[in-house]
Amino acid sequence: MGRICAHLSPKPPMRPVIKEADVVRQIEESTRTGAQANAGQRLTLGIGDDAALWKPRSGFETILTTDWFLEGTHFWRDWHPPEAVGWKCVMRAASDIAAMGGAPSCLLLSLALPPAFAGGWLGKFLMGLNWASAKLKCPLVGGDTTRSDQILIHLTVVGEVSRGKALLRSGAKPGDLIYVTGRLGEAELGLRLAREYRRRGRRAEGKLLLKHLYPEARIALAGWLGKTRLASGAMDLSDGLSLDLQRLCVASGVGAILQTDCIPLAGREFTARFPSSERIKAALNGGDDYELLFCVNPESHHRIPANKFGVKLTQIGEITKKHGITIVGAAGQAKELLPQGWEPF
Amino acid sequence: MGRICAHLSPKPPMRPVIKEADVVRQIEESTRTGAQANAGQRLTLGIGDDAALWKPRSGFETILTTDWFLEGTHFWRDWHPPEAVGWKCVMRAASDIAAMGGAPSCLLLSLALPPAFAGGWLGKFLMGLNWASAKLKCPLVGGDTTRSDQILIHLTVVGEVSRGKALLRSGAKPGDLIYVTGRLGEAELGLRLAREYRRRGRRAEGKLLLKHLYPEARIALAGWLGKTRLASGAMDLSDGLSLDLQRLCVASGVGAILQTDCIPLAGREFTARFPSSERIKAALNGGDDYELLFCVNPESHHRIPANKFGVKLTQIGEITKKHGITIVGAAGQAKELLPQGWEPF
Repeated sequence: MGRICAHLSPKPPMRPVIKEADVVRQIEESTRTGAQANAGQRLTLGIGDDAALWKPRSGFETILTTDWFLEGTHFWRDWHPPEAVGWKCVMRAASDIAAMGGAPSCLLLSLALPPAFAGGWLGKFLMGLNWASAKLKCPLVGGDTTRSDQILIHLTVVGEVSRGKALLRSGAKPGDLIYVTGRLGEAELGLRLAREYRRRGRRAEGKLLLKHLYPEARIALAGWLGKTRLASGAMDLSDGLSLDLQRLCVASGVGAILQTDCIPLAGREFTARFPSSERIKAALNGGDDYELLFCVNPESHHRIPANKFGVKLTQIGEITKKHGITIVGAAGQAKELLPQGWEPF
Repeated sequence: MGRICAHLSPKPPMRPVIKEADVVRQIEESTRTGAQANAGQRLTLGIGDDAALWKPRSGFETILTTDWFLEGTHFWRDWHPPEAVGWKCVMRAASDIAAMGGAPSCLLLSLALPPAFAGGWLGKFLMGLNWASAKLKCPLVGGDTTRSDQILIHLTVVGEVSRGKALLRSGAKPGDLIYVTGRLGEAELGLRLAREYRRRGRRAEGKLLLKHLYPEARIALAGWLGKTRLASGAMDLSDGLSLDLQRLCVASGVGAILQTDCIPLAGREFTARFPSSERIKAALNGGDDYELLFCVNPESHHRIPANKFGVKLTQIGEITKKHGITIVGAAGQAKELLPQGWEPF
């Protein structure tokens, strides 16, 4: 933690009171939580030296994933609670570890901040980050800090999975049944409400915003799918079902057919605000759900319960030999589903 | 290494319809180099799935480090050759692995780009990145891409070191001799020339800019120091000797005394441009050198050659029980050396 390089623009005449060492200290002090304590003997060296040192478990592969979380793109500094920013940046990065059927081991936080945000905002952000870190038993072990006009957040999560047991996108076979966890589209509808609330000067609160602000990586469920070998192909839903399912199909060299009626839409609390057509669109094209998409050989169908670890599991379609994704509506009409999820460029 | 030159104010190519998948494909295609091929069986899964999968070696610890490389803070888009940006972002992150006495295993690139830079600029950047990756035998295995108004670069480097053999900042003992590799201050003086050249509309070329544009992580040397157990405490010099030596002293609970005359200053090619006083200041307070700072028990003094792997090794002082850093000038006058290296906030 805390390594930077040369300063390109001339140094400002008045140096602000805050120093990098203070920021690093604040981060380090915030991590004295359960997750950090649980790191035990596996963490040889945490924040403070040139790099972190970690003992990998024998018989396991290391999973590596990185994730941007940028002001303006992923959150607004004037509206999103810093605690939610801290929580979400960890959970969405950890969701990639879940997507591989693994468990997160440790995380590195790279933070570039305007000096004015290095005090109270940072404290609340770290609180949210450490809630998520403790929940995932995934200690913060290092990273980098620097100054920036925008709040730039970058997470690296290191995870582990038993050798040869990782869930891949490429494993789906024709005839496999397609499942998703949880409900789809709630994060997208929450984001729409967030935009509306922000416009009206309303605060970020309420049940409808829960999935947008505090998503959960499906670590336990993914670990179960990996250990039982029930899932042939899997990934997490971060950019919307229509785009992510296409990615899984391309990786596996297959196609898919979906039943609109089967897709678990945003729950009852959303029905008063959004008509069914909107909730379907959000489920198909909304990002940020961090639910799992996985495929199961039909012979193992009976081994998939309706709920596991308190999370709903729903069959929504089937993998086909024919490429492309077809969606069948309530009245039986079929049409091609085009990928319309989140595209940054 | 290619020619060091860049055009000022490159016209962004007109390329309106760029997609994330195109950027990822361009990155993936660029990595089909020696480093990638050398990854062999240790890389189970590279770019393309939710995360990368890596097989750690038994008997080794994992080293984890992350590094920002931001437009405006660390480079200028209109002046720095994209190849140099690609090279340097890898080398400076890998330098933290060297600082621990380890060898880099693989790297993850997170890139946020304005769409206009996702074409030719990206191609040249990746060329430089892959030169460095090949030189370090450290393949690019994953990362994240998104859109941004500024060019934001973030590197995660994963390395390995034999269990219990990592070089730490905290190992220095009173009486140890202090050494540095290479020459100090050349990157800082190069940066000053870069500012001047940019102001005058001159291109980024010339021998004097080599260390600023294309630094080298001291991997082989650090590995030798680690294996031979010659270094008691060590770190890399990224923020300037006066600041970094202070960090090492604080971590080890010691102080230091330096001999100004012993410090290896910027080479002959710089003397015509910079008087000795400027070269001393740059050696003490300039960042971006990525040389190693290490301490050696005086009984092992004879085992430190003047050169190793083509890199100069120079004794510059001694660790003291008394805290604080004293610097002794040419005429024997001693004064306190205050940390004046790079501070982002």
